[in-house]
Amino acid sequence: MLRNVAIIGVGLIGGSFALALKRHSPATRIVGCDHDEENLNLAIRSGVVDSGATVEQIAADQTLQLIVLAVPVRAIPAVLVALAPGLPPQTVITDVGSTKGDVIAAARLALGDKFGQFVPAHPIAGREHAGVGSADITLFDGKKVVLVPCTETIPAAQALVNAAWVDCGATVTTMSAADHDRVFAAVSHLPHLLAFTLVDELASRPDAKVFFEHAASGFRDFTRIASSSSEMWRDIALNNQVAVLQEIDRYREHLEALRDALSRRDSAAIEALMRRAQEARNHWLAGQFEHFRDESV
Amino acid sequence: MLRNVAIIGVGLIGGSFALALKRHSPATRIVGCDHDEENLNLAIRSGVVDSGATVEQIAADQTLQLIVLAVPVRAIPAVLVALAPGLPPQTVITDVGSTKGDVIAAARLALGDKFGQFVPAHPIAGREHAGVGSADITLFDGKKVVLVPCTETIPAAQALVNAAWVDCGATVTTMSAADHDRVFAAVSHLPHLLAFTLVDELASRPDAKVFFEHAASGFRDFTRIASSSSEMWRDIALNNQVAVLQEIDRYREHLEALRDALSRRDSAAIEALMRRAQEARNHWLAGQFEHFRDESV
Repeated sequence: MLRNVAIIGVGLIGGSFALALKRHSPATRIVGCDHDEENLNLAIRSGVVDSGATVEQIAADQTLQLIVLAVPVRAIPAVLVALAPGLPPQTVITDVGSTKGDVIAAARLALGDKFGQFVPAHPIAGREHAGVGSADITLFDGKKVVLVPCTETIPAAQALVNAAWVDCGATVTTMSAADHDRVFAAVSHLPHLLAFTLVDELASRPDAKVFFEHAASGFRDFTRIASSSSEMWRDIALNNQVAVLQEIDRYREHLEALRDALSRRDSAAIEALMRRAQEARNHWLAGQFEHFRDESV
Repeated sequence: MLRNVAIIGVGLIGGSFALALKRHSPATRIVGCDHDEENLNLAIRSGVVDSGATVEQIAADQTLQLIVLAVPVRAIPAVLVALAPGLPPQTVITDVGSTKGDVIAAARLALGDKFGQFVPAHPIAGREHAGVGSADITLFDGKKVVLVPCTETIPAAQALVNAAWVDCGATVTTMSAADHDRVFAAVSHLPHLLAFTLVDELASRPDAKVFFEHAASGFRDFTRIASSSSEMWRDIALNNQVAVLQEIDRYREHLEALRDALSRRDSAAIEALMRRAQEARNHWLAGQFEHFRDESV
């Protein structure tokens, strides 16, 4: 059981992690840190964390077994630089960032020969709302957490992070950083960009009102992710730029094919695309992954 | 109160209309017609409609006040041709199609000088599941129904259809056919095509499995509409081809601008687009339509 944990960035993810960990191990002492004082006070008052501290105080705390970086990805390098000098060999650091190649590069630079104590991680769970007020004790129940261990990663450190996420209700898997960033560019980052683009395009019209007045539940669900944090998704796009640009280009090509089929009124081609999509999504919903091709590329 | 109503096509929309109408006026006699015998039998057995009939029997029934065409749009012309010869002057016909310009053109052709008895309509409510088994008595509660009256439309006919939808729990508005098709191309037809395209592009990959294994709730909501009927959406795209092609082109341009911003790492431009989208969606969710521009184009 974890006795002493620090969470830097007590927002939706950091706060939900704290709640889920306490659910499993009520005796775990959790210290929280947040640049937003009001948010941190709310986290303390509502019992999400036991106490507050600055990054400097956390860096000086020799009793911590685990430090969770739940800050926006762009803030990770500075926090690691602050933690590195005094980091005791038994303290494990992990993150919750949506991109991994960039975080790993920054961590390697900031931590130097202590990089093996860092376990890159990405919980596949979120909401479009931010802040500890949105924290949810069940956020990770049944969700996947992807660990992205590197050659230097200390096995015991990985095992500790793995166990913490299992305690939080999640299922843990591992991937390489390149695979992680490629896969999430396609299934998460691209859809966010597509949803933001649709809403902004409509909102930019001189007669935007009539469109929004008639948008209904299909539009609502399609664009839910366009209510997500613009700072966070700006950073994700920039931090995973190469893979995201590739995904935009593949998507454009596929959309172009559908546009061509529609412009030549190729009824069979349009229906075939839609039917394949419908069947694929229904297999996915049913957890029938054996339906999908699995050749290495 | 309506005494005698026929519903041709007792699926999700037709079945839900029957249930909602009966909720308001239990004494209304509803006869159902469906080319799928099993579906019609289910509708009768479960009490969604009172009895079954063929299109020919409905065409010969002089007691009907209202005939609702809830068949796929492509089936509407043939049904109207069958109904036209014997249509008594007091019988009103309406439809529930997602496109209006094409339906109106077909109705004008099929009904000739009885075209004024036809009230084009589009309830803005749906689910990704089809069939009477998905019918829901509350489907139209608080939802919008757009009537698209033409110069020939008989005012009393329009009033009858208006009242029927109000009885079903909906709010009724009117639009021109051109405005209707332009607006729904943008807020409904395009998002469907974008969602189908995303899922099919991923499913077509040689390593599709790893992508679907890691897709989560953002992907689920973004692609919900890709579980919709491929026949129905093929027809909608084809029937509203001009407006849909225009929407694809506007969307491509906007996506291209985001791609350019990302490729030159223009952090401010990316965030500005996302922030505008986020704010627009939040205004929309809150019903703050005064936030949107309303210049005629």
